[in-house]
Amino acid sequence: MKFFSFWRSLASFRVRCGLYLKGLTPSEVIDVNLMQGKQREEAFRKINPMMAIPALIENDGNVLFESLAILEYLEETHPNPPLLPKTPKARARVRALSQIVACDTHPLIVPRVREFLAHEYKVDEAGVQKWGHHWHEAAFKALEANLSGSKETGRYCHGDQITIADICLAGNAVGAFYFKCDLTPFPTVRRIVDLCWQNEAFARAHPLKQPGAPAAA
Amino acid sequence: MKFFSFWRSLASFRVRCGLYLKGLTPSEVIDVNLMQGKQREEAFRKINPMMAIPALIENDGNVLFESLAILEYLEETHPNPPLLPKTPKARARVRALSQIVACDTHPLIVPRVREFLAHEYKVDEAGVQKWGHHWHEAAFKALEANLSGSKETGRYCHGDQITIADICLAGNAVGAFYFKCDLTPFPTVRRIVDLCWQNEAFARAHPLKQPGAPAAA
Repeated sequence: MKFFSFWRSLASFRVRCGLYLKGLTPSEVIDVNLMQGKQREEAFRKINPMMAIPALIENDGNVLFESLAILEYLEETHPNPPLLPKTPKARARVRALSQIVACDTHPLIVPRVREFLAHEYKVDEAGVQKWGHHWHEAAFKALEANLSGSKETGRYCHGDQITIADICLAGNAVGAFYFKCDLTPFPTVRRIVDLCWQNEAFARAHPLKQPGAPAAA
Repeated sequence: MKFFSFWRSLASFRVRCGLYLKGLTPSEVIDVNLMQGKQREEAFRKINPMMAIPALIENDGNVLFESLAILEYLEETHPNPPLLPKTPKARARVRALSQIVACDTHPLIVPRVREFLAHEYKVDEAGVQKWGHHWHEAAFKALEANLSGSKETGRYCHGDQITIADICLAGNAVGAFYFKCDLTPFPTVRRIVDLCWQNEAFARAHPLKQPGAPAAA
């Protein structure tokens, strides 16, 4: 299994974390340097025309892309340990919390969007930082309201087992670090994120632990 | 079942279309006027702290939000007719195509983002139009490359049955209409979208067919 990823990519983190939680290790990790625009080069474009990472190529040549689609695939093909709860209602809540991050937040702060803001509207570095900060904060407000207000919340986002929602939440906390968004106003979020990083798979998958990450980031 | 929606909302369209395809009709439709900022009012904020539509409240009080999470829930609770194929690989492809729209594209053009561009960076109306046009075009380029290059593509995005990918694709075509993005360079996309609108559920769910939509939009 070939895994196309980049240390800083939060979508790559989500899949890396899911792989590790399922006890899977890619046979090859291919670095797609987003800061150098490698995702737009012909070779990668053939794999994922959306020019986004992560992507996975299985040994039989099957190509997978989009982080949540890959996580659902891993869940269907490697059901243990489960990363989704059993009942449709619980699954819907976990997916919705995940999508607050993976749909409503993270796609707004990826390189192509930050570059478009800078080139098209001449938004400066501080303005781009504000953009990233704003959308992370909006997500954490919504997540904190849901997590602190729901009796379904346990040690983790949903009950006492790790789910895809925890993976997404932890990834958003890394994004908050990139954009200097303080988690203090969001105690439930912070409690769960802190617990996630104590898990070995999360710790190993952390963006700042990957090859190429700055030592003092 | 109470359905919180707005005529123009493409995420509401996705769920409305899924409901109709499954033969379901909400007992009550509550208009959340995004142009008047009704999604940010206290009453709706309690239902979905992300302040986004659609949301569904079931008869037992269960709250559902995030369009793709709701569609997966409908699939699990009302499996016929199916809106996802059977095999994990096929499901992964359908979900990935759906997420090009519902994660990578649509969240960029929702009211809160357009308003932030206008207020924070003083982007004028033409600049906001360009933004919407740019992200729709990027999605259609990726979708056309995948759809035209895959032997899995049939009459619809995946084979000859309607899936969630077709719902997302048709919604993106409505977004293209809002932002004057020409579909001519994307013949496979256009062929499938045209076929979707011939389906009664799609036609009934079309944003411009909902109460409140402008007659000559």
